[in-house]
Amino acid sequence: MRACHSEAEEHAKVVVQPNKSALMKRLARIEGQVRGIGGMIEADRYCIDVLTQVAAVKSALDAVAMQLLENHMRGCVASAMQQGDATGMVTELIDAVKKIR
Amino acid sequence: MRACHSEAEEHAKVVVQPNKSALMKRLARIEGQVRGIGGMIEADRYCIDVLTQVAAVKSALDAVAMQLLENHMRGCVASAMQQGDATGMVTELIDAVKKIR
Amino acid sequence: MRACHSEAEEHAKVVVQPNKSALMKRLARIEGQVRGIGGMIEADRYCIDVLTQVAAVKSALDAVAMQLLENHMRGCVASAMQQGDATGMVTELIDAVKKIR
Amino acid sequence: MRACHSEAEEHAKVVVQPNKSALMKRLARIEGQVRGIGGMIEADRYCIDVLTQVAAVKSALDAVAMQLLENHMRGCVASAMQQGDATGMVTELIDAVKKIR
Repeated sequence: MRACHSEAEEHAKVVVQPNKSALMKRLARIEGQVRGIGGMIEADRYCIDVLTQVAAVKSALDAVAMQLLENHMRGCVASAMQQGDATGMVTELIDAVKKIR
Repeated sequence: MRACHSEAEEHAKVVVQPNKSALMKRLARIEGQVRGIGGMIEADRYCIDVLTQVAAVKSALDAVAMQLLENHMRGCVASAMQQGDATGMVTELIDAVKKIR
Repeated sequence: MRACHSEAEEHAKVVVQPNKSALMKRLARIEGQVRGIGGMIEADRYCIDVLTQVAAVKSALDAVAMQLLENHMRGCVASAMQQGDATGMVTELIDAVKKIR
Repeated sequence: MRACHSEAEEHAKVVVQPNKSALMKRLARIEGQVRGIGGMIEADRYCIDVLTQVAAVKSALDAVAMQLLENHMRGCVASAMQQGDATGMVTELIDAVKKIR
């Protein structure tokens, strides 16, 4: 991963994910799964079968989140810590962990 | 909701969700959000911003799951219980709750 | 389980859990585990080891919650549904599922 | 916090939590809450009221876990990263995040 490149302001940070194309493929697959759930509801499929699919998509999103979190720690957080300036990042990271749980 | 209509075999159960079109709209919106996350990764957006979006999609899916669970209890489980035959359904429901957590 | 016995008012409901003594034993064990975590912190144990124990206690509490939920559905909710009056109960149940996730 | 002090072997790591006495107090309170849940079951309290308490304890444990995670990142992980040797720690941390979710 290109080290976390922080531009002029906070919101212009640029991060090339190391496994970028794999991540994009996974998201395309998840998108298809979500479309499939819509199709199940349209086809009047049994509630529990739909719920099972919703659970599968949530798990797939979790796996993506964990990968992003790992990339972030190995890339952005590591860089910041080596520069001795990671206080804000840890707070931000804890907030992210709370959100994705 | 048309009461849970169980056909010949288990896997042919037909359930018209009471709020079917609203649910389909929500899933279409979630599908768009997932596509948006793929776009964020393609655009090298900051990890934490991507994670925040993943968390938002997970919440949206949770809301759909809760709606399906509620429909299921008010429809399928209620019918089965009134017919005094809900033992298997409660087991199935508990399993579903465990999965979607 | 003695069917859900609703007294004068909402908050006086009495429910004898069918596996009452097993549940009490599990809670006593969880109480001991929590005390053990306090001991680990007192003994300056490694953060990750403490976190692993916290995770174990959360899982044990989840199992208790699932058992209570199952008892509730097989007992209280089933009774209410057979009496054709479970609207409030389903709402309450969904709220409980949301909380324990 | 005394920086993460790694002794002879992995499992002998010593970590004095920076807010050690506050953490121990919180765990003592949680221990009391768990005992209270056992008491509610003994007293045949309504399932949903018991579940609400179980949820409260899970939240309290989550808050402890988040505090430990934060301490760990600011202490142990930061030290390891400054020494340029945090690869294993990030893996361990991701595993911990997965467990406590």
